Amino acid sequence: MKNDLSKLLKPQSVAVVGASPNEGSVAGTILQNLHSCGFSGDIFPVNPKYETVFGFACYPSISALPDTTDLAILAINRSLVLQAVEECGERGIRHLVIVTAGFKEAGAEGERLESALRDLIARYDLNVVGPNCMGIIHRSEGIKLNASFSRWFLTGGGIGFISQSGSLGETLLETFEDAGLGVSTFINLGNRAGLTENDFLRLLADDPQCRAIFLYLESFAEPHEFRRILESIHQDKPVVVLKAGRTKAGAAAVVSHTGSLASPDAIVDAFLRQCGALRVTTIDEALSALRVLQKGVLPAGNRVVILTNAGGAGIIAADACERLSIDVPALSDEVQMKLREFLPPEAGYGNPVDMIATASSEHYEKALETTLPSVDAAIVIFRPPMVYHEPVENVADGILRVLAKMPTKPVLVCTLSRSDMVTPLVKRLQEQWIPSYVMPETAVSAVDVLCRVKALEVEAQSANEAYSTANGRAIAGQILEQAAAEGRTGLSFGEGAEILAAYGLSVCPFAYIESLEDGIVFLKQACGPIVLKIDSPQLLHRFEANAVITDIETNGGLVEAFLQLRETIDHLGMADARILAQKMLAGRELIIGLDRDPSFGPAIMFGIGGTLVEALRDVSFGVSPISQSEAETMIRSIRAFPLLQAFRGQPAVDLESLADIITRLGQLATDCPNIAELDLNPVIATTQGTYAVDILFRVASS
Amino acid sequence: MKNDLSKLLKPQSVAVVGASPNEGSVAGTILQNLHSCGFSGDIFPVNPKYETVFGFACYPSISALPDTTDLAILAINRSLVLQAVEECGERGIRHLVIVTAGFKEAGAEGERLESALRDLIARYDLNVVGPNCMGIIHRSEGIKLNASFSRWFLTGGGIGFISQSGSLGETLLETFEDAGLGVSTFINLGNRAGLTENDFLRLLADDPQCRAIFLYLESFAEPHEFRRILESIHQDKPVVVLKAGRTKAGAAAVVSHTGSLASPDAIVDAFLRQCGALRVTTIDEALSALRVLQKGVLPAGNRVVILTNAGGAGIIAADACERLSIDVPALSDEVQMKLREFLPPEAGYGNPVDMIATASSEHYEKALETTLPSVDAAIVIFRPPMVYHEPVENVADGILRVLAKMPTKPVLVCTLSRSDMVTPLVKRLQEQWIPSYVMPETAVSAVDVLCRVKALEVEAQSANEAYSTANGRAIAGQILEQAAAEGRTGLSFGEGAEILAAYGLSVCPFAYIESLEDGIVFLKQACGPIVLKIDSPQLLHRFEANAVITDIETNGGLVEAFLQLRETIDHLGMADARILAQKMLAGRELIIGLDRDPSFGPAIMFGIGGTLVEALRDVSFGVSPISQSEAETMIRSIRAFPLLQAFRGQPAVDLESLADIITRLGQLATDCPNIAELDLNPVIATTQGTYAVDILFRVASS
Repeated sequence: MKNDLSKLLKPQSVAVVGASPNEGSVAGTILQNLHSCGFSGDIFPVNPKYETVFGFACYPSISALPDTTDLAILAINRSLVLQAVEECGERGIRHLVIVTAGFKEAGAEGERLESALRDLIARYDLNVVGPNCMGIIHRSEGIKLNASFSRWFLTGGGIGFISQSGSLGETLLETFEDAGLGVSTFINLGNRAGLTENDFLRLLADDPQCRAIFLYLESFAEPHEFRRILESIHQDKPVVVLKAGRTKAGAAAVVSHTGSLASPDAIVDAFLRQCGALRVTTIDEALSALRVLQKGVLPAGNRVVILTNAGGAGIIAADACERLSIDVPALSDEVQMKLREFLPPEAGYGNPVDMIATASSEHYEKALETTLPSVDAAIVIFRPPMVYHEPVENVADGILRVLAKMPTKPVLVCTLSRSDMVTPLVKRLQEQWIPSYVMPETAVSAVDVLCRVKALEVEAQSANEAYSTANGRAIAGQILEQAAAEGRTGLSFGEGAEILAAYGLSVCPFAYIESLEDGIVFLKQACGPIVLKIDSPQLLHRFEANAVITDIETNGGLVEAFLQLRETIDHLGMADARILAQKMLAGRELIIGLDRDPSFGPAIMFGIGGTLVEALRDVSFGVSPISQSEAETMIRSIRAFPLLQAFRGQPAVDLESLADIITRLGQLATDCPNIAELDLNPVIATTQGTYAVDILFRVASS
Repeated sequence: MKNDLSKLLKPQSVAVVGASPNEGSVAGTILQNLHSCGFSGDIFPVNPKYETVFGFACYPSISALPDTTDLAILAINRSLVLQAVEECGERGIRHLVIVTAGFKEAGAEGERLESALRDLIARYDLNVVGPNCMGIIHRSEGIKLNASFSRWFLTGGGIGFISQSGSLGETLLETFEDAGLGVSTFINLGNRAGLTENDFLRLLADDPQCRAIFLYLESFAEPHEFRRILESIHQDKPVVVLKAGRTKAGAAAVVSHTGSLASPDAIVDAFLRQCGALRVTTIDEALSALRVLQKGVLPAGNRVVILTNAGGAGIIAADACERLSIDVPALSDEVQMKLREFLPPEAGYGNPVDMIATASSEHYEKALETTLPSVDAAIVIFRPPMVYHEPVENVADGILRVLAKMPTKPVLVCTLSRSDMVTPLVKRLQEQWIPSYVMPETAVSAVDVLCRVKALEVEAQSANEAYSTANGRAIAGQILEQAAAEGRTGLSFGEGAEILAAYGLSVCPFAYIESLEDGIVFLKQACGPIVLKIDSPQLLHRFEANAVITDIETNGGLVEAFLQLRETIDHLGMADARILAQKMLAGRELIIGLDRDPSFGPAIMFGIGGTLVEALRDVSFGVSPISQSEAETMIRSIRAFPLLQAFRGQPAVDLESLADIITRLGQLATDCPNIAELDLNPVIATTQGTYAVDILFRVASS
């Protein structure tokens, strides 16, 4: 689907179907918005009941509309929508905004209507926004279009905003404009019967005016398409996503630890990180992120200097930096000496630099010029003190002069006030897209955003290597089909190991022990302790069934264990059960598993294994496909990561082979949709290689 | 120190020493503030250079002031301050606000001046605010006093605000007033040469108008006094603290794990929790907390209903609830049926209740009345939709009518806008101290505040039982003195165990093994595996020195281990080293230790032990004294707490004995200030009893 949407935002003429002269009606409001926003094209109300509406000549029907009509806005009773869409199709009007509600959000009849609408969209190849939406707004050079019933028009600027929700979208627009955020495009998607966020992402990707994209989403129309688009654009412009709707996991019974630990929200987190998008969790966070991103300057690192004329606010800013792991480095002796040349002795020469209440605009300019070269960004806190004889905008001018010399370093300003006394300063900065904040913590959060976006950008530069699996897919497919044909949902250890081996995963060496003699040979060859366990496709949780005996070191121990497991097999009554021996491996116990998300498809979970996994819930996720570098990010993001590094005399584990398992398992999960669940628990990570020690597969029942 | 501060806030007459007619001077501003705020008493400028200042008759000196002068504000050169204070003392003026800066914050000369000032305060028994402060402001029935150079006066209300910082305090005042927070008292403490936050806490505790207290602090003047005061008041009025200054731990060398894991900020967290104060970490959080606390209604639990006319905002609110573990329970069939009687079929009958854009004020009122009885609090989201024909304040009136019937349930309103269209609604609610918020997440954070304050209140109701330790103190003192006399900083295991036993702590049974025969007897009596370790007061970290051998089960193993440790002793060259045997205990490995904070004194750390403690840093703190219930809170607050509960077939550990150890160790640490460091690592928690297995003491060198 490649839709040419250029006329949607830049139509020659617009028809408003259902327009009436009633004050406060939706269609009437849209007509007035179109007019009052300064739209330069023609506006055609369509309504058989009127000759004119608000002074515009009214057309009796869609078919009577002039040829220049590129866009029709439908704000009519839902029972009339399908016919109107068909008329647009016949008339050759390919761009529609359907404001009317009462479709799939409104029960069975609405769902039926929406389904018929989708058919019409396909039949006439239409570009439809909605239904159940507020409309679209666009403002750029030469174009002013408010094709919505929003109370807010746009001031223009670098932000493109795509919102699934209408009322929340309008709230956000209001808040954005209040905060000096420049929005050039606003799209309310509504029910997405036709166009989705993906279509508009493509449009905004190609829009040179758009410097950052913000999405409010409650669900993804097509996540893998979304990921592909983002992978092609995020290096050029940051994408910020507020994803709402943290629904609890479904009630479907799961047998794997992974299934019980996965949460839809953790997977959204992983997905967006992999897309290179910045996820925000609150509206305030979104606002703060966009304000700082619209300037388009990212810091090279996370070292920040804080300049202040109010000690307490400096401390609050430094605290916030510590919470967010932003570095506030001590200043070098040389820098401190330079500062002492012009600041009074009572000033604080640490970082924050407390320039005390007497600091002038010249002090600010010199201090910024002196300190900025040795850090990546600056937070300038300036609140006019009681006694202050300069115009406050002088401080802004000083900052701007320094920035002209060092344009690649972000500088954020905090005023500790939103009153009139700071307005001239804030305005002067705003003209250059330098964000200013009331609260120090908000400014620090904004620096954090810059650092995170920078990190996402760096991360996304590592390409997603291709990985050939034709052979593996064939082997896995055969084993899974066999199981399905036998009506099994479980696999034997041997079957599971074969699948893993076909995908290049290392499995801890094992052998089936048919007799005591076999066991004694295995123990001798192992040159160390071994484990015996019962294997059966029916036995999902060995430990709970007392079907595992560890630390077998002597022949005597082996005999005892073998006989005990034989007894357990009899007790369990599993005819296909066999005894399996494995060498015990020394290393860190981990869990790697598969969860299938209804929206994102296969996701791989990684975490500390053994008994700790469920108690600590210290796990991370990645949505397949997972590149080697994404797998490394997953590994690094668990809290217990220090346990995998060199620690208390133990050397670090082999991270590369560990990341490799995650990558390959992601591929397996994508290739074989009939693997419903999969736990490798434990996986033992050693200093050389990573090995699956126990394997649990659940095959989807066909 | 019990100061009668009543005249400080309610003086009959006020002198402003240093007042001059210069516009913009500090003293002149204070004089004008006093006048313009409507202060009803006399105002006396003091300055030998003028006859009148801004129309007020000027006094040539402090000694010339009238008898009615209760309060003097000094805004003079610092070189004149000491003399002026002395004159006030001689003249019988006992209440002073010293605005002048340049004291202990400004180098050696300033420190000398402040020390002399303290002497004068003591000599004349003065109540002094400052120096280096902005002043004090008070507004209550019959009193208007702005004895500060703040640009902001107060509107009055239920909040008392004590700020260590001046400029930040003023910023907060501005923000508070903007947000409709009613402040009746503002104190800027400055350097606290005389009065501290503790004095003003006592004052506000007794002030019936004050319903909640807010403190901005960078340090505590006297933390234990603070705790005592808070323990006496927090049940009546919530205390909210924004504590800034998260300084990194000092560079002093520590030998204990506890010492390396303790952070000053974690201890502040623990301390404030134990005080029953709500700690906030950002200004926005403070604002949100105070707005919701000024009404004084706390919910009985954490079950919330969300009513909305904008679906997206409802989802955002529900998400935020999930993040903060606030319960958004499904509505009962009965409640849903009642809602269906008046809401349209397209409405959403889950929780959030999506009443869709057509919801009227009557719908809101009925829905709130229907749902509120089954929950503890409500969040009402109302943004006037495009088509809305009622005055918005009708919604407020409906809510207020419901609240009149159910006054014990908090209701918070979210408008999704700060524009004029919602102002009448916000104002109507504000009159009844019902807070309204723009963003759903902010409203949810406020509910979280209510729940946390409620929990702190419940927790604080468990009294701090007395614990007699005279005998324990004597035994511990003797052992520690002995070590100090011998110039040792370490103790033997036996000495450590004796101290612990004297405080009623269980130590895992042990014996010194002088010969192989001793060892064989010990192993036989143990009826299970034992451990041998080398003990010497010089040996602080046994494991690192290979001085521990575990899992000894046979006489053969014992002999081998014994001989190996003998060799290690020779190698270490510690003449006082002995071999010690302990039975191995099965249970959960924990660490309990002591950290001494320079400000708060002894703090006890609790966490998961063994190799995990340093990697996961999963620890919690409590400041001594620690009650049994505070110890339980510490135990419950580590992430790995589920490991201590019944888990995977293992029964729960004995939490009572575990809490008991923490309590008793807190007492030991208080009794014996010369214990510099102490690690019990591991402590083994079993289903019956908790045992210290290894012990590390470091005695302060005298």
